[in-house]
Amino acid sequence: MMDLIETERILKLAIKNSENLKCEGEVASYIPELANVDQDNFGVSLTTTEGETVSLGDDKFKISIQSISKVIDLIMALEDVGAEKVFSKVGTEPTEYKFNSLIPIEEKVVNPFLNAGAITTSSLISGSDVINKFNRVMKKVSELSNGDEVTFLEEVYKSEMRTTDRNRSIAYYLKSIGIIEGNAEEILDLYVRGCSIGLNVRQLSTIGAVLANGGRSLDNKVQLVEKEVVKTTLALMATCGMYEESGKYLIEVGFPSKSGVGGAILGIIPGKCGVCTYSPRLDESGNSIRGKKVLAEISKTLDLNIFI
Amino acid sequence: MMDLIETERILKLAIKNSENLKCEGEVASYIPELANVDQDNFGVSLTTTEGETVSLGDDKFKISIQSISKVIDLIMALEDVGAEKVFSKVGTEPTEYKFNSLIPIEEKVVNPFLNAGAITTSSLISGSDVINKFNRVMKKVSELSNGDEVTFLEEVYKSEMRTTDRNRSIAYYLKSIGIIEGNAEEILDLYVRGCSIGLNVRQLSTIGAVLANGGRSLDNKVQLVEKEVVKTTLALMATCGMYEESGKYLIEVGFPSKSGVGGAILGIIPGKCGVCTYSPRLDESGNSIRGKKVLAEISKTLDLNIFI
Amino acid sequence: MMDLIETERILKLAIKNSENLKCEGEVASYIPELANVDQDNFGVSLTTTEGETVSLGDDKFKISIQSISKVIDLIMALEDVGAEKVFSKVGTEPTEYKFNSLIPIEEKVVNPFLNAGAITTSSLISGSDVINKFNRVMKKVSELSNGDEVTFLEEVYKSEMRTTDRNRSIAYYLKSIGIIEGNAEEILDLYVRGCSIGLNVRQLSTIGAVLANGGRSLDNKVQLVEKEVVKTTLALMATCGMYEESGKYLIEVGFPSKSGVGGAILGIIPGKCGVCTYSPRLDESGNSIRGKKVLAEISKTLDLNIFI
Amino acid sequence: MMDLIETERILKLAIKNSENLKCEGEVASYIPELANVDQDNFGVSLTTTEGETVSLGDDKFKISIQSISKVIDLIMALEDVGAEKVFSKVGTEPTEYKFNSLIPIEEKVVNPFLNAGAITTSSLISGSDVINKFNRVMKKVSELSNGDEVTFLEEVYKSEMRTTDRNRSIAYYLKSIGIIEGNAEEILDLYVRGCSIGLNVRQLSTIGAVLANGGRSLDNKVQLVEKEVVKTTLALMATCGMYEESGKYLIEVGFPSKSGVGGAILGIIPGKCGVCTYSPRLDESGNSIRGKKVLAEISKTLDLNIFI
Repeated sequence: MMDLIETERILKLAIKNSENLKCEGEVASYIPELANVDQDNFGVSLTTTEGETVSLGDDKFKISIQSISKVIDLIMALEDVGAEKVFSKVGTEPTEYKFNSLIPIEEKVVNPFLNAGAITTSSLISGSDVINKFNRVMKKVSELSNGDEVTFLEEVYKSEMRTTDRNRSIAYYLKSIGIIEGNAEEILDLYVRGCSIGLNVRQLSTIGAVLANGGRSLDNKVQLVEKEVVKTTLALMATCGMYEESGKYLIEVGFPSKSGVGGAILGIIPGKCGVCTYSPRLDESGNSIRGKKVLAEISKTLDLNIFI
Repeated sequence: MMDLIETERILKLAIKNSENLKCEGEVASYIPELANVDQDNFGVSLTTTEGETVSLGDDKFKISIQSISKVIDLIMALEDVGAEKVFSKVGTEPTEYKFNSLIPIEEKVVNPFLNAGAITTSSLISGSDVINKFNRVMKKVSELSNGDEVTFLEEVYKSEMRTTDRNRSIAYYLKSIGIIEGNAEEILDLYVRGCSIGLNVRQLSTIGAVLANGGRSLDNKVQLVEKEVVKTTLALMATCGMYEESGKYLIEVGFPSKSGVGGAILGIIPGKCGVCTYSPRLDESGNSIRGKKVLAEISKTLDLNIFI
Repeated sequence: MMDLIETERILKLAIKNSENLKCEGEVASYIPELANVDQDNFGVSLTTTEGETVSLGDDKFKISIQSISKVIDLIMALEDVGAEKVFSKVGTEPTEYKFNSLIPIEEKVVNPFLNAGAITTSSLISGSDVINKFNRVMKKVSELSNGDEVTFLEEVYKSEMRTTDRNRSIAYYLKSIGIIEGNAEEILDLYVRGCSIGLNVRQLSTIGAVLANGGRSLDNKVQLVEKEVVKTTLALMATCGMYEESGKYLIEVGFPSKSGVGGAILGIIPGKCGVCTYSPRLDESGNSIRGKKVLAEISKTLDLNIFI
Repeated sequence: MMDLIETERILKLAIKNSENLKCEGEVASYIPELANVDQDNFGVSLTTTEGETVSLGDDKFKISIQSISKVIDLIMALEDVGAEKVFSKVGTEPTEYKFNSLIPIEEKVVNPFLNAGAITTSSLISGSDVINKFNRVMKKVSELSNGDEVTFLEEVYKSEMRTTDRNRSIAYYLKSIGIIEGNAEEILDLYVRGCSIGLNVRQLSTIGAVLANGGRSLDNKVQLVEKEVVKTTLALMATCGMYEESGKYLIEVGFPSKSGVGGAILGIIPGKCGVCTYSPRLDESGNSIRGKKVLAEISKTLDLNIFI
C-alpha cells in the first residue's frame, strides 16, 4: 500500500522540479480548438488500486483525451469481437513511423495505437449506429472512471471534423484494402468522437488504477475489463503507447503509458496505481514535455519502474 | 518467495503440454555448426532472486547463446562508455525489420538487439585488443552465472566466421557511415566470439536472476551490474528482445526476454526470477517454438506476467 | 515518310503473331464497369506525323482511357500554371511503387503518372468549376484527336466514383499535406472524369502523332501543345509511363508510352508517328499484355526504337 | 551529317555561357585521390557517328571514369553471359535511392547503375582471374575508344581500395543473399579497377559515338557491341543513368547519359553523335554541375533532344 502523504510530498517535489519546463514545447494546433487552452496549465493525479487519489494542480479541467481514446477503442473492440478478429486487422508491433502515417499499413495496420489502428478498432465496436456506439463508449469510460460524469467536448469534435483530412484519408485507405468494412465516414466520425471525450486528471488516473487492478473496480466488486484484455492492452501500451519514442520512454519512465496530443499522459503501474499528468505543451513526437519529466521523476522516487 | 516444489510441478506440466511441439520448426542452419545438435532436445531452468534453481530436461548441454550475447554486449558497452555514448550510436526503438537487416541503420542503428546494433555495442567494449576484450566478456558472463565455467564453442565460432558474409557486410556498412570506429574485421570477430559462448540453461537462468535482482549477486553482496544499466536493458528486452515479434510475445508471455537462434530464450521477471528454456527448433522469426510455448504457459500458471 | 502499305502489312503480321496472347491476363475489374467489355477484343492504329492513319481490328470501340488521361492532365497543368508550379508539387522521378500507392508522396508526389500525381495535376487545371474544367479537358482532347467527337463514358464514371475509395484516400492525403488546395471531392471528381473519357484507337494514335510532331497539328498549321511541354511530357512517359515496369518496357519497346487499365497503350515515336493498341487483358502491373507484345514487335519491324 | 564548324561555334558558346558555374559545387572527396585535380578544369568533346571529333578545353586530361565504368560492366556482362542471366540478378527499374544504397536490393539489385548493380555485373564478366578479367575490360574500352591507349589510374585505384568500406559492405551483402557468387574481395577489386580507368573527353565521346552508331565501329567495319546490347544499355542510361535525378535530367537534356563522380558525363544521341563533358565539381546527386549545363544548352542549340 502506498503512503498517501509521502506520495503527495513527492508529487509536489516533481512539480517544483519541472517548473522550468512550463513554457517548453508547443500546444497542438492542427486541431484549432486544441490550442484554446491555458498553455501553461498543469495537473497530476495518482489513484491507488485501493481507490485512494492524490491530485495536485488543475484537477478539474476537462482535457480532450485524444489518443488516449485509442486505449478505450482497443478494449472495447477486444471485448466486442474478440482478440482473434481484432488482431486479424491490426498487428501488435511497434513502428518507427508517426501516428498519422499510412506507410505501416499493409495486410494489417501495424498496431492499434496508430491513428489507422484506432480507426480500425473503432470500426469493430458494436452498436446499431454511430450514436449508439458512441453512447456505449461514453458509458464504458464513465464506469472505468468510477461513475463520474464524462464530458463530450463538442467544440473540439467539430473543430477536428473540419480539419481531419488526414484521418479521412486513412479511413478511405483502410476501406480500399478491406481492413475496415461499413461506412468510412461513420467510422471516422466515431473515432473523432472518441478523441473529443473530456476527462480531468482524477478521472484518468482512476481509469489507470482500474487497469492496474487487473480490470477490477477499485472496490474489487466488478470485473470492469476482462483480465486477458487488460494484459494485452498494457503490453501494447508498453511497446507502442508513446508514439515513435515508446522505447526511449519505457527506459526512462518504465511503466505502460499512453499519451494524447491534448496534453495528458496516462500511466499504469500494475498492482499499484494509475497516474495521469496534464500539461498541453508537446514535444515533436506529440508527447507532453512536462508530463514526461514528472513521470520520470516519480517513477524513481516512488519506485514505480516495473523493471527494477 | 516462490514455492520450489510447486514450481517444479508446474514446469513439468508445461513440458508435458508442449511435447507436441517437439518436432515443429527448423533448427538454425545458416551457421552449419548450429545444425549439429540433437534437434528434439529440451531443457528449462528457473532461478529465483534468492538463488534457488529448479531445472528439468537437459540442463547440462552448452547452448551457443547467439543473440543472447547482445544483452551482454549492451551491458558491457553501457558500463564501459556510458549510456550517452552508446545511445549516440544505437537507438532505443523497436523495428519491423529482421535482425540481420541493414535498412534500419541511418544516423544510428535503430536498437541494440539487431545484429547491427550488437556489432556497434561490441565496438564500444573496452580492452587492448580482441582477445583482451573477449576475455573481459567471458569474465563478465562467468560472474553473472555465479562463477561457473563458461565455455567458448570454438567450432561454432569457426563455422560462423566462415559464413558470416551478412555480418561482415553490416560491419563495413557501419564503418562506412562512421557508427563504428576502429578495425571492422576485429569488431566483427569480437561480436561473433560473443555469439559462440556456450552456457547451459542453469547458467542462463542464473544470469536472468541477477538481472531480476536489480543487478545484485544472488547473495546480495555485490552489485554485478549497475542498477541503471539493468533498468535500460530490461526495458529494451521488453520492446525489442524477440526480433520482429517482440510486441506479440510481450502480450503472450509478458516479461522481458531475449532469444538466440541457438534455441535458448532467457526471460527475466523483475523481483522474482530468471528463467531459461532450450529447444533448438525455431519459428520464422528465429525464436524457439517450444520455448515460447513453455514460457507462455508458466507465465500464467506461475503468475509471472508483469502487467497483471 | 513511312510506307503505309508496308506498315499495314507489318501491323497485320504483329496481330497474327500475338493471337496466342488473346486470352492471357485479366480485364481490370476494380472498376466494375471496366469488366463489361469484350475481353478478347483488339485494335491497333498508327498515325504518321503527316496525318495518315492505318488501323486494324476494332477501331471504333470507345475505350475508357483511364491513366492515359494523366498525360492530358499533365499537359494542361503545364500549360495552365507553368512547369515551375507543377514541379513544385509533383516530381520527375520514376518509382518502384504501384500507381495507387501513397508511399512515394513526401514533400511532392514523386511523379505525375501515379494516381496521386495526376490528382495533383488535375488540381492545377484552370476553370471556374469542375464542369468548366472538364469541358476544357474534353475540348483539348478533341483538338488533339483531330476534332473528332470525344465521348464521356458516364457509366464508367459513375462506376468508378462508387468504388474510388483509394483515390479518395489519396486526395484527402494530398489535401492534408498541402499538395492540393481547394475542395478534395471536386478535384477527385475532375480526375475520375478524365479517366472516363472514351476514345477509339484512331483518335488515340492521332493524339500520339501530334505529340510526335512536336505538338503541332498534323497539317502543321497550329501549335496545339507547346513544344517545351511536349518535350517534358515525352521524357516523363519514357521514364514513368508504364507503371513500375517502365524501365523494362523501354528496353523492350523503346519509345515513350502511356498505358491505361482500360486496355489501351499509347506510344509516341518522335518525328515519325503515334501508335495505339487496345486489348483489355492486363498483366499484374496493369499494362495490356497483347498490346505490349504488338508494340515490341512493330518497334523492331518498323524500326521505331528511339535508341538504335 | 552534323556541320562541324557550326558545332564548334555552338560548343564555344555553351562553354562561355557556363563560365559562371566554374566554381560551383564540390569535387568528390570520399575517394581522397579524386580531390587531387584542377577543380576548375573543363573539357568537352563531340564525336559524330561518321567519326569526326570536335573538342574544346582540356581534352588531354585522363579523367577517372568512375561510374561510367558501369556502362562497360553492363555491356560486358550482357555479352559474356547474356541478358537472361544478367537480368536474373539486376533489375531494369530506376530508384529514388542513392547510388551507394543497399536498400534497393531484394531478390535482385534494382538496376545495373547502382554500385550494387555494377558490382553484380562485374561478377558476371568472364575471365580466369581478376587480372585477366580486367585486361578484357581494358581491351574493350580501347576498342570502343578507337584504339587509343587506355590508362589505369593506379593512385586512384589504391586510394579507393583504402576507403571503399561501403562497396565492400555491398559486395558482402550481395554475397550473403546469393546475388554474386565467387570471392567477394576479388569482385570488389575488379569493380574498383573499372572505376579507376582513365580516359580523356575525346576517348569518351568516341565510345559514345560507337554506341550512337548502333555498336558499329565508326568506319562501320566492325560490330563492336551487339545491337541488342546497345539498345538495352541506352534505354537504361535514359532511365537510370544520372543517379536519382535521371528523370529530371532526361527532361532537361533529353538523351541517354551516364555520369561519374570523377566529373565526366557521357551522352549518346542515337544516329548522331556521342558527347562528353568534364568538369569535376558536382551537385549533391554526384553529377557534374557545369557538365549538365553545357549538355542542356547544346541539346537545344544542336537539336539533340531525342523527344522533339
